[in-house]
Amino acid sequence: MVRLLLVISMNLAALYHVSDYNCTQVQSDGSILIRLKTSSEDNIKEINLIHGDPFLGINSDEGNWNWVKYTETMEFLGKGEFHSYYQIIVKPKYKRIRYFFEIISEEGTIFFGEKGITANQEVTEDNFFGFSYPYIHLSDGYIPPSWLKKTIWYQIFPDRFYNGDPSNNQENVVKWNSILPKSNTFFGGDLKGIIQKLDYLQELGIRGIYLNPIFKSPSTHKYDTDDYYQIDSHFGTKDDLINLVKEAHKRNIKVILDAVFNHTSPDFFAFKDVLINQDKSKYKDWFFIKKFPISLDDKEINYETFAFVRKMPKINVDNKEVANYLIDVAKYWIKEANIDGFRVDVANEQPHQFYRKLREEIKKVKGDAVLIAESWSNSSIWLYGDQFDSVMNYLFTNLIVDFIVKKGLDSQTFVRKYIDVLNTYPLTTSKNLFNLLDSHDTQRIMTLCNNDLDLVKLSYTLLFTFIGTPCLYYGGEIGLEGKDDPDCRRCMIWDESKWNQPLNKFIKELIKIRNKYSDVFVDGKLDIKEKDELIIIKREYDNKVITTYLSISNYLKINPNDEILIKDNKLLMVITYL
Amino acid sequence: MVRLLLVISMNLAALYHVSDYNCTQVQSDGSILIRLKTSSEDNIKEINLIHGDPFLGINSDEGNWNWVKYTETMEFLGKGEFHSYYQIIVKPKYKRIRYFFEIISEEGTIFFGEKGITANQEVTEDNFFGFSYPYIHLSDGYIPPSWLKKTIWYQIFPDRFYNGDPSNNQENVVKWNSILPKSNTFFGGDLKGIIQKLDYLQELGIRGIYLNPIFKSPSTHKYDTDDYYQIDSHFGTKDDLINLVKEAHKRNIKVILDAVFNHTSPDFFAFKDVLINQDKSKYKDWFFIKKFPISLDDKEINYETFAFVRKMPKINVDNKEVANYLIDVAKYWIKEANIDGFRVDVANEQPHQFYRKLREEIKKVKGDAVLIAESWSNSSIWLYGDQFDSVMNYLFTNLIVDFIVKKGLDSQTFVRKYIDVLNTYPLTTSKNLFNLLDSHDTQRIMTLCNNDLDLVKLSYTLLFTFIGTPCLYYGGEIGLEGKDDPDCRRCMIWDESKWNQPLNKFIKELIKIRNKYSDVFVDGKLDIKEKDELIIIKREYDNKVITTYLSISNYLKINPNDEILIKDNKLLMVITYL
Repeated sequence: MVRLLLVISMNLAALYHVSDYNCTQVQSDGSILIRLKTSSEDNIKEINLIHGDPFLGINSDEGNWNWVKYTETMEFLGKGEFHSYYQIIVKPKYKRIRYFFEIISEEGTIFFGEKGITANQEVTEDNFFGFSYPYIHLSDGYIPPSWLKKTIWYQIFPDRFYNGDPSNNQENVVKWNSILPKSNTFFGGDLKGIIQKLDYLQELGIRGIYLNPIFKSPSTHKYDTDDYYQIDSHFGTKDDLINLVKEAHKRNIKVILDAVFNHTSPDFFAFKDVLINQDKSKYKDWFFIKKFPISLDDKEINYETFAFVRKMPKINVDNKEVANYLIDVAKYWIKEANIDGFRVDVANEQPHQFYRKLREEIKKVKGDAVLIAESWSNSSIWLYGDQFDSVMNYLFTNLIVDFIVKKGLDSQTFVRKYIDVLNTYPLTTSKNLFNLLDSHDTQRIMTLCNNDLDLVKLSYTLLFTFIGTPCLYYGGEIGLEGKDDPDCRRCMIWDESKWNQPLNKFIKELIKIRNKYSDVFVDGKLDIKEKDELIIIKREYDNKVITTYLSISNYLKINPNDEILIKDNKLLMVITYL
Repeated sequence: MVRLLLVISMNLAALYHVSDYNCTQVQSDGSILIRLKTSSEDNIKEINLIHGDPFLGINSDEGNWNWVKYTETMEFLGKGEFHSYYQIIVKPKYKRIRYFFEIISEEGTIFFGEKGITANQEVTEDNFFGFSYPYIHLSDGYIPPSWLKKTIWYQIFPDRFYNGDPSNNQENVVKWNSILPKSNTFFGGDLKGIIQKLDYLQELGIRGIYLNPIFKSPSTHKYDTDDYYQIDSHFGTKDDLINLVKEAHKRNIKVILDAVFNHTSPDFFAFKDVLINQDKSKYKDWFFIKKFPISLDDKEINYETFAFVRKMPKINVDNKEVANYLIDVAKYWIKEANIDGFRVDVANEQPHQFYRKLREEIKKVKGDAVLIAESWSNSSIWLYGDQFDSVMNYLFTNLIVDFIVKKGLDSQTFVRKYIDVLNTYPLTTSKNLFNLLDSHDTQRIMTLCNNDLDLVKLSYTLLFTFIGTPCLYYGGEIGLEGKDDPDCRRCMIWDESKWNQPLNKFIKELIKIRNKYSDVFVDGKLDIKEKDELIIIKREYDNKVITTYLSISNYLKINPNDEILIKDNKLLMVITYL
């Protein structure tokens, strides 16, 4: 077989397909998405999926598999830095599929199946030559709630958004925006404040709020939970949360909470019990104790923590008692407050079986609740459909920062890497990712861009034209600045005269366009090109094409014939009706 | 970054690593196996894993990640047809690892991380450049029972092995071996027969029996189950099974049963109820009914089946009631008969959540019970550790048949593909795979080889020297012949004068060697080479090297200085003490 291949100068070692979750994905309608990677250097004309039922011909009257085969052309998704991506979605009649790829290049045709690669058509008559997806079950699928991909998110750090009820302030609250925040400054923001600003968010065009932690905790950020069953009293009450969600829903805005299930505070009842009763505590297996006694003050920390933070003891969710405790917490807040799901903090540091159970249980309570993971790296194994619906897409964030801020990539390389980031996951997954420029854990994009408004606008434009759900970090829309934590958590500015008005106008416009043409941005095919430092991003759906031109270096001099949606120094967005 | 790479002529598109189950695997001792694929054409001198804790330098006094890094050299596992494989097993102090690869070739050095590929050492100072395995939990690991990898299996088709109790014969039993089997010939083999032959198996050196189905069923093969709670009366009783397992265990032999959980017979109580009560049956959601009414006689089959076999209605295990029913069956037989696990029939056609639950539940009953999947293709997604311990490795079977029988590969290509098959899964997984030359579903190797004894011996030698657990299909050891099902299910011959004595002697020798040098074959490093049509397979462990020379075409003329273990026309096995 190999001999025949020598005539074809294709990069055979770069071909990648396995019938696993990375390359095959059951869709909500029972079809299956199949994808293939090739080298981006190959001169490929077309790739076809040749497929059939594995049992035809063996036990049926419908004929032999060898001739009951279908050939369908795969969609080309773009050229990344080293790879090109192809996909196809098919729905086999009997829910079973055996398949292989016919790769047609300038120099000839080869076939790629599980047994290898051949240019010999006869070999493909061997049923075992093909890859196999043995049976399509919806329960093996990736099926997020349908609302997710349509969402424009707004992340709120509650202490810093709006103080709607001064009566619940901490004693040591400082005047709103009177100083730059230190790691534990309290400004008095609360849930009532958010409720009072829901009209503002609705008018902005927001469709979902992601709230940083609100449960009882000694810190400002509240990532060290004392009590998962209590709203922190300085943020408000359970009724306030119920009311917030109700009012948000009235405005067509979803609300998700931050689930900090990786670690607690030392005052969490179970850890407190261990501190007191040490190895006699019945909660000692709720944590990872390396050696008794443990104490908060020892130089060597004798228990596992988040990172190396001694006040954040890590929870052992492999302990069924603990898993059930936390799952009950999640169910409680969905039931009580009708929230729409959770962003799960440090999701990537807890075991998969816990998330499978968490997913199963919360979906029983609210079928369309979402689980969004915090994970900064390739998060494939959390996104197979059995655990998370989505993930904070820091791969995208890093790409934008590398290109716009660090100037570490030329435009051509940026476009190639953009395709790679987009195709890190099957496209259906990418459509539901939580894309962001900044968060409570990063510098703000305004500061990263050194207040260069053109660059900030380009960043937001890239965010809003990308496949997936964009998230604004509170205040991003008015140009709030901030270096690394805690500086990135400054108070929201409500005095409009202090807003960056041009940016605000621009972002409102972006959101308006995204909502108005949601079909294009949510399900439209993406095409991105680069020419002489000009980047051209097309999103096409049905009879509409939205084309965005942008450059990080040059002012644009394009005079389009099409309807202009946005025009600015270094970018232009137009719509064409086909 | 890309610019720098142009000087290095490495196949960058062929580099493959993702922090998913395919490339990373938690081991039973809490270490993590990391693997990497490159093009086999690259002139690579060495690949190092550079790794560190992702949080060092951020929240600790232990210094900055950028300089608290460890460099360890990866093990080269061999060159496949298009790829080379590398692996390393590391145990990070804090159970967290960020890492990237340093690839040193003749032309220079590149670094491969999640952000891409660079030749620029400075870029690797960026914490986000690396891949990340965020936290090692044993519950995310691949941890089969330790006995599994040491097992030599023997598969028994009960009706055809030995009739130990003529009193339970069917009425229509035909005389042992008097005819070639048709699809529903009964010969009278039974559990008592197996018990009576346990000494034979023990003497042969067998360590595990895989029994084809034994539950109540109308057919000879019993893959259409009437009642999962009854041993088929013609095979014996529950006590016979209990006794069989007890006697086997006395002889250090494990016993696993065939779990046919994908489909039933039409006489299974639930399907019978649907046939009678149609859409009023409370069991209608136990199956996949396309349209009522259903009947066994309609031309169009109105319910889903295995393949297109109308007498094998497919079970809906996504229905929790059904899942619990079958899991109870599995637990029942482990509890009652102390069996050591199951080979699961058509495992690849049922959903993953079912197997996760099945695994969890049976391991509660017997911690070291195994689950082995029937799956004929790449079975990665069943082998992540959450479902199956092992799979019937038909990828290996197909390779042997292609090489030995079909003569479709030259020796060089065979060696390359052998490395590919071996590295389809992480090596720890391969060590536990169920390797076979033939089964009740294939032609027998004797027949495939057209009774060419040299070829049959070569096949068994390849089976026994491969990484993983070899399985003999009953009668293979005496040269039983058989074309496709039902011919491959002939009666075992107990008249030794009719055995293929040379083959029998040879296989006994192979088993003896495998058991005597089990450390070498179970955990020994494998090295395979080809030179002028001579294949050389080395297995090395501790101070022992077992080298096998074989050729499918030529008689061997090697005069070794080492101790000879086996010498035959076309093969030679020697042992060297280092």
